[in-house]
Amino acid sequence: MSEADPLVRVRLDICYDGADFSGWATQPDRRTIQQTLEDALSTVLRVPAALTVAGRTDSGVHATGQVAHVDVPRAVWTNASGQLIRHLAGVLPADVRVVAARAVPPDFDARFAALWRRYVYLISDRESGVDPLTRGFVLGWPRRLDADAMNDAAQRLVGLHDYVAFCRWREGSSAIRTVHMFTVHRADDLITYTIRADAFCHSMVRSLVGALVAVGEGRRAVDWPASLFARTSRSDEVPVLPAHGLTLVEVAYPRDADLADRVRETKARRS
Amino acid sequence: MSEADPLVRVRLDICYDGADFSGWATQPDRRTIQQTLEDALSTVLRVPAALTVAGRTDSGVHATGQVAHVDVPRAVWTNASGQLIRHLAGVLPADVRVVAARAVPPDFDARFAALWRRYVYLISDRESGVDPLTRGFVLGWPRRLDADAMNDAAQRLVGLHDYVAFCRWREGSSAIRTVHMFTVHRADDLITYTIRADAFCHSMVRSLVGALVAVGEGRRAVDWPASLFARTSRSDEVPVLPAHGLTLVEVAYPRDADLADRVRETKARRS
Repeated sequence: MSEADPLVRVRLDICYDGADFSGWATQPDRRTIQQTLEDALSTVLRVPAALTVAGRTDSGVHATGQVAHVDVPRAVWTNASGQLIRHLAGVLPADVRVVAARAVPPDFDARFAALWRRYVYLISDRESGVDPLTRGFVLGWPRRLDADAMNDAAQRLVGLHDYVAFCRWREGSSAIRTVHMFTVHRADDLITYTIRADAFCHSMVRSLVGALVAVGEGRRAVDWPASLFARTSRSDEVPVLPAHGLTLVEVAYPRDADLADRVRETKARRS
Repeated sequence: MSEADPLVRVRLDICYDGADFSGWATQPDRRTIQQTLEDALSTVLRVPAALTVAGRTDSGVHATGQVAHVDVPRAVWTNASGQLIRHLAGVLPADVRVVAARAVPPDFDARFAALWRRYVYLISDRESGVDPLTRGFVLGWPRRLDADAMNDAAQRLVGLHDYVAFCRWREGSSAIRTVHMFTVHRADDLITYTIRADAFCHSMVRSLVGALVAVGEGRRAVDWPASLFARTSRSDEVPVLPAHGLTLVEVAYPRDADLADRVRETKARRS
């Protein structure tokens, strides 16, 4: 871009039904959320659009509070911003929506400025099976689960730990993360697992909830999931639960004055 | 049945996602909720099962609180009742569930003993479109709706009236009904229409909400829907909204001692 055509950084708040997507990240010959959104933005803005995202969700995982950013020429943004949400609604398929779009400081980075991500996993252990209207985002479990025992076990998983036992290995990546909170709450037959961490490694939430379910069924003791922190590689004993019960619900960022510091801090820790 | 093999009347509480069904009532070469349930019951109980239902919902309409009854030989019921819900869960497709089954007095009649039915219609007028995870049971509306004006208009539709302007005509049937309550409530971008009546004629809820939407958009005055009570036939000006926004949520019955009276009263009014 020339100096006469500076860029505006734009934050997008996004939700999607992950069922018919091969996850967030663009892959050849696959329907992905990233590609679908970049295509829609390019159509509406008439310039190429490259998204950076807070959480690269796996195939089948949903989002109600995903965040991404994109850099757009200022003239294009000035022109488009007033009608952008409406125009995107007309172009996007019904399983992905951009619910907000606003200019943010250039230090905002959807991925590296994030303070934490919050995910929810939903399980119904109703004897008759999952409510048909919510079966797209609630996992059915055929046996009754002890939510109190699972909540006790979840408390022992909070803190700064190496979560390698709960992660699918990626070359060169660390599994050291800080889990800020992890709660298990029952309301009738619906069990809500809520977890907040600075970041998550691959399949971490689905593995942690999988470990809790072993406790909830009484097959494992309450202290068993946390005992796996002693492992130095992924544990085969921890099942990875299906993707469709998992939803990214919120990503938090610092106030504008602290964005640059947060990005520097995150990048230093990852390298 | 012989005297030695008396029947037990069984009440079933049912929920379903109506999307892939051609409505409740059995029709040749169509996938219907009634046929799906009767087939599953026959498989599990090993006797023929014929259901009588509270609300014969149309194609695409959902239910979280549908009620039906079936008569089962006492020996079969005694044998099957303890595991019936679990066995049905294993046989039924994921879009229909039987959540409860219990023996009721012989005077119980899912259709004629009902005191009232409650339906909910959901509309989202969010600029970005319907939340992807709920789009199967929420109608998206492209323009902002005035929920207060719609609620005012709804109050004028309550009472004992001839709802013929809002009904698809069925030969020999009356459209005189009593609407006990009809409210319109906004929570953020989700508008909930809740209506309770002794009974409903064909497409009545979708037509009443359609009339309210004309008020919510400012195209019609608040007193326009109620002015249609003066009509003697279906009004072409009233749109029938799509089926997927409509859900049957509750059916109420009198206490056991009053069941027979209620059935007599309902049948007398219908004839």
